[in-house]
Amino acid sequence: MKTFKITIAYDGTDYVGWQRQASGISIQGVLEDALRDLDQREVIVTGAGRTDAGVHAFGQVASLAIERPMDAAVLVRALNARLPPTIQVVDAEEAAERFHARFDAARKSYRYRIWNAEVPSPFERAYAWHLSGALDVDAMREAATLVVGRRDFAALQAAGSATATTVREVYSSIVQVVTEGGEVVDRQANRGRLIVYNVTGNGFLRHMVRNIVGSLVEIGRGRRPVSWMTEILGQRSRALAGPTAPPHGLALVAVEYGLQSLSTNTTSEIDG
Amino acid sequence: MKTFKITIAYDGTDYVGWQRQASGISIQGVLEDALRDLDQREVIVTGAGRTDAGVHAFGQVASLAIERPMDAAVLVRALNARLPPTIQVVDAEEAAERFHARFDAARKSYRYRIWNAEVPSPFERAYAWHLSGALDVDAMREAATLVVGRRDFAALQAAGSATATTVREVYSSIVQVVTEGGEVVDRQANRGRLIVYNVTGNGFLRHMVRNIVGSLVEIGRGRRPVSWMTEILGQRSRALAGPTAPPHGLALVAVEYGLQSLSTNTTSEIDG
Repeated sequence: MKTFKITIAYDGTDYVGWQRQASGISIQGVLEDALRDLDQREVIVTGAGRTDAGVHAFGQVASLAIERPMDAAVLVRALNARLPPTIQVVDAEEAAERFHARFDAARKSYRYRIWNAEVPSPFERAYAWHLSGALDVDAMREAATLVVGRRDFAALQAAGSATATTVREVYSSIVQVVTEGGEVVDRQANRGRLIVYNVTGNGFLRHMVRNIVGSLVEIGRGRRPVSWMTEILGQRSRALAGPTAPPHGLALVAVEYGLQSLSTNTTSEIDG
Repeated sequence: MKTFKITIAYDGTDYVGWQRQASGISIQGVLEDALRDLDQREVIVTGAGRTDAGVHAFGQVASLAIERPMDAAVLVRALNARLPPTIQVVDAEEAAERFHARFDAARKSYRYRIWNAEVPSPFERAYAWHLSGALDVDAMREAATLVVGRRDFAALQAAGSATATTVREVYSSIVQVVTEGGEVVDRQANRGRLIVYNVTGNGFLRHMVRNIVGSLVEIGRGRRPVSWMTEILGQRSRALAGPTAPPHGLALVAVEYGLQSLSTNTTSEIDG
């Protein structure tokens, strides 16, 4: 048996999310089907982040073990040959037997994209939240910085979630506007702007990024002051925060691991 | 009757192209259906460029005339309310009665995108030509500059095309690599690079941009020297040029008009 760490990109549009569900097609399910065909046995794939329906990934990471001897490059090709074009393995490497993509994850980065224009973009309909009307990006940028730090994020967790702890550390939380530079803007026909929110932390609660974005948009709309973000974070209840931003604007960009997690058997912190 | 110039963005993936065909759904057909519903009569929409099946547009321009009195902003909203999310009108303005989106076009810009990576991107599968393996971008860039100028482009025209003249002027022809700057590259999981070809001219022959790209790729692969582009351009036959690049990497980015074409009744050159 060899354990692998694989990196996966997927367009989440047509899937019920990462995790296997009672009905519908999941990313995990499609990967496990491909691995069953490859290894001629049931293979369990453990993802670093359990992305919701419609959420995308450029760098989801998963751990798995297979019996059939093969090296990482062959595994990438063999899996991609069995995967649909909406799910592709972009990298693989051998990992320690005890490597666990979720428990060992040290940092995760998510991105949320807002297409701020009067008219929806045919190219962003599945990849950005379309919002017309004015958004005060400076206020959103300032409010985003208030999220940084180690704190209890219970107020930004999906209602009804049960996790051991709601304390997480956010390392960076940045709002950017893509207004020039060619490629991206031109793709949108120059009739709007892309507001991109990038956040990195040691872990995220269910819907946490989407709830941050929903709150940032309330502030950007001028319905709430920048200081409202501090108020929200001071609560333990979901009641105060803004609405949950829709899933299709969200993407899991990268998952990082400590050097030792891939090569040794140390036990790391649990990351919900 | 009021004449309008409208600017349209569309994802060409699921359409048979701009122009109405005997079977299949065309962009023109969808727009004319929406206009018939709006104006309660048959309305003819004339596009600046007749894009092929699978080709996209960020700034296609079309001319049309409607009887029902309405201003440009209302027309945009009324049309978008009747259009699918894959076709959206991003702008409209009133134009002179004799304005003709195709005959009056002074400059057109096209873009071709190549996703150069070992693994296809789930996000670029409908928007870029996936090419794995090495591509010498410096050679491609140099060869692209050879296309600039007023010349006979017969050798880069689709076989069997019949046009009055095959002389066109190319104003700029640039190969760029998107390797950094965040947004675009990160969307691709940093496992490849996007090679973007931008070309502007007074008009283009059928398949001309895709034939230029097919030839640039032959040069990028090292199968032909940079000077081969000059050889191709010296021919009058399609036989020499590289293969036609696939349609889904191509997008009509913008169509520009002389100041007078929108406000007066001057007759302009024909642009095939």
